[in-house]
Amino acid sequence: MAKFGFVGLGRMGIEMAGNLLKAGHEVSVFNRTIEKADPLEELGALVAHSPGEVCKGTDVVFSILADDGSTEEITLGRHGLVESLEEGAVHACMATISVELALRLAKVHQSKRQGYVSAPVFGRPPAAAAAKLFVVASGKHASIEKCMPGFEAMSQKVFSLGEACEEANVVKIAGNFMLASLIESLGEAFALARNYEIDPDLFLEILTGTIFPAPVYKIYGGMIAKDSYEPAGFKLPLGLKDVGLALEAGERKGVPLPLGSLVRDRILTGLSRGYEEFDWAGIARVSADDAGLKPIK
Amino acid sequence: MAKFGFVGLGRMGIEMAGNLLKAGHEVSVFNRTIEKADPLEELGALVAHSPGEVCKGTDVVFSILADDGSTEEITLGRHGLVESLEEGAVHACMATISVELALRLAKVHQSKRQGYVSAPVFGRPPAAAAAKLFVVASGKHASIEKCMPGFEAMSQKVFSLGEACEEANVVKIAGNFMLASLIESLGEAFALARNYEIDPDLFLEILTGTIFPAPVYKIYGGMIAKDSYEPAGFKLPLGLKDVGLALEAGERKGVPLPLGSLVRDRILTGLSRGYEEFDWAGIARVSADDAGLKPIK
Amino acid sequence: MAKFGFVGLGRMGIEMAGNLLKAGHEVSVFNRTIEKADPLEELGALVAHSPGEVCKGTDVVFSILADDGSTEEITLGRHGLVESLEEGAVHACMATISVELALRLAKVHQSKRQGYVSAPVFGRPPAAAAAKLFVVASGKHASIEKCMPGFEAMSQKVFSLGEACEEANVVKIAGNFMLASLIESLGEAFALARNYEIDPDLFLEILTGTIFPAPVYKIYGGMIAKDSYEPAGFKLPLGLKDVGLALEAGERKGVPLPLGSLVRDRILTGLSRGYEEFDWAGIARVSADDAGLKPIK
Amino acid sequence: MAKFGFVGLGRMGIEMAGNLLKAGHEVSVFNRTIEKADPLEELGALVAHSPGEVCKGTDVVFSILADDGSTEEITLGRHGLVESLEEGAVHACMATISVELALRLAKVHQSKRQGYVSAPVFGRPPAAAAAKLFVVASGKHASIEKCMPGFEAMSQKVFSLGEACEEANVVKIAGNFMLASLIESLGEAFALARNYEIDPDLFLEILTGTIFPAPVYKIYGGMIAKDSYEPAGFKLPLGLKDVGLALEAGERKGVPLPLGSLVRDRILTGLSRGYEEFDWAGIARVSADDAGLKPIK
Repeated sequence: MAKFGFVGLGRMGIEMAGNLLKAGHEVSVFNRTIEKADPLEELGALVAHSPGEVCKGTDVVFSILADDGSTEEITLGRHGLVESLEEGAVHACMATISVELALRLAKVHQSKRQGYVSAPVFGRPPAAAAAKLFVVASGKHASIEKCMPGFEAMSQKVFSLGEACEEANVVKIAGNFMLASLIESLGEAFALARNYEIDPDLFLEILTGTIFPAPVYKIYGGMIAKDSYEPAGFKLPLGLKDVGLALEAGERKGVPLPLGSLVRDRILTGLSRGYEEFDWAGIARVSADDAGLKPIK
Repeated sequence: MAKFGFVGLGRMGIEMAGNLLKAGHEVSVFNRTIEKADPLEELGALVAHSPGEVCKGTDVVFSILADDGSTEEITLGRHGLVESLEEGAVHACMATISVELALRLAKVHQSKRQGYVSAPVFGRPPAAAAAKLFVVASGKHASIEKCMPGFEAMSQKVFSLGEACEEANVVKIAGNFMLASLIESLGEAFALARNYEIDPDLFLEILTGTIFPAPVYKIYGGMIAKDSYEPAGFKLPLGLKDVGLALEAGERKGVPLPLGSLVRDRILTGLSRGYEEFDWAGIARVSADDAGLKPIK
Repeated sequence: MAKFGFVGLGRMGIEMAGNLLKAGHEVSVFNRTIEKADPLEELGALVAHSPGEVCKGTDVVFSILADDGSTEEITLGRHGLVESLEEGAVHACMATISVELALRLAKVHQSKRQGYVSAPVFGRPPAAAAAKLFVVASGKHASIEKCMPGFEAMSQKVFSLGEACEEANVVKIAGNFMLASLIESLGEAFALARNYEIDPDLFLEILTGTIFPAPVYKIYGGMIAKDSYEPAGFKLPLGLKDVGLALEAGERKGVPLPLGSLVRDRILTGLSRGYEEFDWAGIARVSADDAGLKPIK
Repeated sequence: MAKFGFVGLGRMGIEMAGNLLKAGHEVSVFNRTIEKADPLEELGALVAHSPGEVCKGTDVVFSILADDGSTEEITLGRHGLVESLEEGAVHACMATISVELALRLAKVHQSKRQGYVSAPVFGRPPAAAAAKLFVVASGKHASIEKCMPGFEAMSQKVFSLGEACEEANVVKIAGNFMLASLIESLGEAFALARNYEIDPDLFLEILTGTIFPAPVYKIYGGMIAKDSYEPAGFKLPLGLKDVGLALEAGERKGVPLPLGSLVRDRILTGLSRGYEEFDWAGIARVSADDAGLKPIK
């Protein structure tokens, strides 16, 4: 069993760290709001008071924070990972962060002879709880190797990409872009169907019973058929952030993403209409509005 | 066993009529190029020399032609279905036609006391051959009822919508719009991934192994990963037609479909570049071009 | 002085026919609602009871109807121009019609040895009244020559294009597409400025006082700065028609017009929100809505 | 006569600083590549070796650098303006920078009791040389007042907005967004016209002779009619930067700019095709490519 650190105990992180403990690993955890660590302490976690403290004697520190800003802070800030991680130890960043930040973190860690791995995940909190996440990892093979026991405890499958750490970020960003696109296409299709007085539940049953049998169509299509977007699994502003990451990643390499642009504008419109608490399936409400459809309820 | 007519023996129709025969029905068939009927004749079909001839003594005539123009001709033209169908008999149009034409056909048939059902299908030729199509039907319930033995012989499942005949057309059009959208999103995602030197096969494996397990992602993603769009299952110009049907259907009811507009412009661009023989997965080649990616091979 | 016919006495036509009379030409006029011809009768016009009657003894019949449908009817319908125009006489269609219809009309007229000229105009009713229109003409040179005395009486300038009659339609359609695009860009720019609490009148003053001194910016910008779109000079549904003509013309020749698609979707959205009585400057209200801006007043 | 500082002697700055000198002001100048200051030295300028040196005894320092990065450096960096400007003196930033940076600079200057004014300009180098620029200024009125003698020496007109310094940046950004939109609309319109074999020069003559008489239509339309985009007055990558500023400014306040998104994607496409040396009128070449039009010549 390895000794791991874990930083960031949000809805995902708490489950992931829990699974590390359940798998028998020794885990030291940090979260800004320290009370969140209580349930993990009961499972045997050591509770640290800074990201740096988490690094003591650990081979790998996993982190999963909300965005670039907070990831940057726990890594590059005072008492952060770069300052405290031992030589040869690895920081595996599992958050959805920008290509730019991933490249920057990798460079700084390397300058300290620390390893850096980008290892974002696909899956929502229930999948995290069930250790059914998918991990997509890129970075030096030796560094990924050190993370594997941890990844395995948290996921149903690990996909290893190349040694360029940003590859995993791009895959995650592209995946989220595709989800946003799928929601947009559902939103427009439902607006069309509804204006022809087609029953939305039957419409969804046909779509998912024929050519679109994937669970994502059922999940997002279900919210759209009900025209009900709360409580949110993943809020609209997070969607804006992730589509923004895709557009930035595209711009870095000269890749126009017109569908990404479309979805970004849709989300901005939704936010202007006060949908900031909606799940990002609520992108569909914008299509419905524009088609003259009043909210159901 | 019923007595059916069948008009239109293209790649789909030939299989569908064959399945009617295999199920034991008496079938009279018509196709403009009459030789196409030969294999059906061997299975016991009566070969007619006009759409009208097919109507003699039949309860239901199924038709599946390439587009609005040809459907209009065999229905409203000389020796067409309207002219020859008996009172109470039904025309079940299984092609992907416009809402406008469906409404027009329904009206004319009704004025002759004939039934009209819109019954487009989801599925490609192999599914048609295996009687694994999905039929989406709308129209008067009594008329749909008469078609059911035929539908059942051709499909794995029939979805019945309301009595407004255009509903089935809208569902089919919306489904195809969603496929086109899916291809566009794959195209942009692959262009992004490729520009970051991510292996396209691995990228596809991750997508379809995690959040997008549906066969459509594998089929279209497979062509895109190989950057190979020939031979086509469904050619780009047909995609233009179908996206055009979606935009028209939207305009009739005041539903903007910006993703539909985007895909339409992409297809037009592809056609300007000489991709008219490509499968519509080739929409992705336009994204690749725009990202500066040379064709593979 | 020549003998002319004039069909279509809407807001534009009444002024244009009036200018023919004022220039001393003999003019016979037709309008479906015949009372509209009264003021012209006082100016000396002969009032006809069918488009065909207008053709008697005339060298050129000018027509300016609302759209393709009505133009088709007065030309190809019973007692229409094709039926009644003399050999060698010319039909000059001054309406904004589709490329497809222009080509069709030219063909039918030619089969009767009649001339056909496409001659749409730029300018609103006040310009028509002041004989300050711009005429854009294409068709056989000999036919255009016959129309010139009439064009000169109605306009400040005539631009002659080539012998392919659709050229003038394309120029007119492209011009209207550019106006719609200009409105869209103003709409987005004002939404941005307003959200930064910039005074809209000052913003307009800066734009038109620096890089955008054209009257169209003042006219449309003025409505947008006031956020007031009624009474309409050119209603939103007419804008939809014209942008549709641009998209169709593009599709015929494989020209994607993504900005045209964008504007089309904006107008559809506006119509869904009940803006059908707005001037098409009201496209800007959609941008304002989407930016969370309440209507002024 | 006042004592001014001037930082940034690019194609615009050199002319603007020259006009300050010609108006009789005492001017101390700085440019990273110091030789660029030679012609100004001949006109009597003091040549400084750092931005800070320029601040000595000056009431106002004007700066016009290429972008946010360089503006940030000369302002906040070592020997920068913030470090060296006297209390009560003013920094007038005339570059096209982001709203975010303007707000940040204003805040830092204020913390040092220095004034900050955003004062971007409309006009190209020849207008700068002729002192025919338009200045758009926002910031504390007292600060703007101090800049006025300088603005007047450099421009034909000064537009004063409110005290919120970002207003002028937004107006400038919105103006450039509108120019990019105008180019896009010209590009699509010309692609349409060309595919109908309409002579591009005649097409431009009609557009600018009727509804679009503004010089910007002549300038950009002229390049597009010739399909010739070099030498560039304003390069495509600068266009990408400016459209990016508009999108960012929109995002800050929840304003979707779909036309801005469209143009951004067009420019990215152009850059992927190797058009980075083109004037931004070259956005039109992308439309031409997509319509299957080979470059002229």
